[in-house]
Amino acid sequence: MKKILVTAGGTSEKMDQVRSITNHSTGNLGRLIATKALEQGILVDYVTTTAAVKPVIADGLQIHLIEDTSDLQTTLTTLLTNNTYNAVIHSMAVSDFTPATSYSIEHFTEQLNQLIATAELPLTTEQVAQLATTVPENTQSKISSKTDYLFVTLKKTPKVIQLIKQLQPATLLVSFKLLVDVPKEELFQVAIESMQKNNGDFVLANDLQSITSDQHLGYLLDTQGNVVGEASTKDAIATMILTTLLKKGVN
Amino acid sequence: MKKILVTAGGTSEKMDQVRSITNHSTGNLGRLIATKALEQGILVDYVTTTAAVKPVIADGLQIHLIEDTSDLQTTLTTLLTNNTYNAVIHSMAVSDFTPATSYSIEHFTEQLNQLIATAELPLTTEQVAQLATTVPENTQSKISSKTDYLFVTLKKTPKVIQLIKQLQPATLLVSFKLLVDVPKEELFQVAIESMQKNNGDFVLANDLQSITSDQHLGYLLDTQGNVVGEASTKDAIATMILTTLLKKGVN
Repeated sequence: MKKILVTAGGTSEKMDQVRSITNHSTGNLGRLIATKALEQGILVDYVTTTAAVKPVIADGLQIHLIEDTSDLQTTLTTLLTNNTYNAVIHSMAVSDFTPATSYSIEHFTEQLNQLIATAELPLTTEQVAQLATTVPENTQSKISSKTDYLFVTLKKTPKVIQLIKQLQPATLLVSFKLLVDVPKEELFQVAIESMQKNNGDFVLANDLQSITSDQHLGYLLDTQGNVVGEASTKDAIATMILTTLLKKGVN
Repeated sequence: MKKILVTAGGTSEKMDQVRSITNHSTGNLGRLIATKALEQGILVDYVTTTAAVKPVIADGLQIHLIEDTSDLQTTLTTLLTNNTYNAVIHSMAVSDFTPATSYSIEHFTEQLNQLIATAELPLTTEQVAQLATTVPENTQSKISSKTDYLFVTLKKTPKVIQLIKQLQPATLLVSFKLLVDVPKEELFQVAIESMQKNNGDFVLANDLQSITSDQHLGYLLDTQGNVVGEASTKDAIATMILTTLLKKGVN
């Protein structure tokens, strides 16, 4: 392998100018993968966030900072258009939703009563979706704190991961699937489905319940659903991913 | 002054096990205040978050890590009960709201139609508030991403700042008020009102629009609404606050 792209850390979506919804991810695993790759002379483009831990600056390493899903989309498009990567290791925790509108309970009740007065009942999800899209209140600079409840609507973000194989079909894509406290069979099934949907080559399946400060249980699955490796620390996961890619890769 | 309490950074409120709503605050100003106080031999109890920048470890400094508003309440209660502070400088950006419930649009529509079918119309805010309180969906471990819109309700957090003078009426309290892009008169008025409500002695009023990486415009106001000082960098604000407290303080 000559050059890889690693994403790490978690995206943040702005609610207003002082608040964000953040996906937790320290970036430790991505940092280990990048560091090990650099030691083997592989060039690394590294996409991460300000808050995440980063690899030590080194020859062959380029760091690209992003904040939200939209930044990530722009940065990945540019990188995948201008470079050829032997592999893309997409360990970043990307927000599934981004804030769309935000109402005080008083304002939400008012809008809801307007909707009820003009619509046929019962309401359909399409009608209720109007509440999630029509009021451009997220453009306000800071949400007022003078209400007892806020109603915040969030809309799905585009699936940025799908860009990777669209723009670079020949690269090897390793995706990640994190679930919380599910049976191993369910974890594997969800991980495999997500890999297939994104046209990935490998998926690292892990469960938050088996991640502590010094342990990180992870299973690497291939497109056939075979477990090609299993590791119990972040360091071992990083090595397992790189070794698997080197075995599979042509270069 | 012998001993002060400084809070810095921004709280994060969990939406589920992998997502939080975070109030942005680097902690830089709090760090400067603590560092300058320590240099003058003042003991510092420092309450902050994992993500915030921290003062260099030093004799006389005790760091207490918190994550959310509820942690902050517990930690401040303990500290203010067991220690006597000449001053409390509360620069932490504390979440006004914490996630209460979270619905997919499908589930929200269903609950809404049930409410409409059983309630007299138009709906009152009290009735709509049921949607923000009755469904304990935030106890789920990870919000599903299989829906186009999420409806998240947030409820007001307790005003932790009010604990300070309740538990320690004799301490000097410096609070902070950050607004976004408002006229100076409005900034001052809102800052003074908030200081008075919290029984504070000084308030540092600032506007996000006049904060950049090397500039930070801040006004220190007293209970009469007089501007006791004005500074244009974080370092100068830290000095201004400490100097003002030392002049005012008995010890």
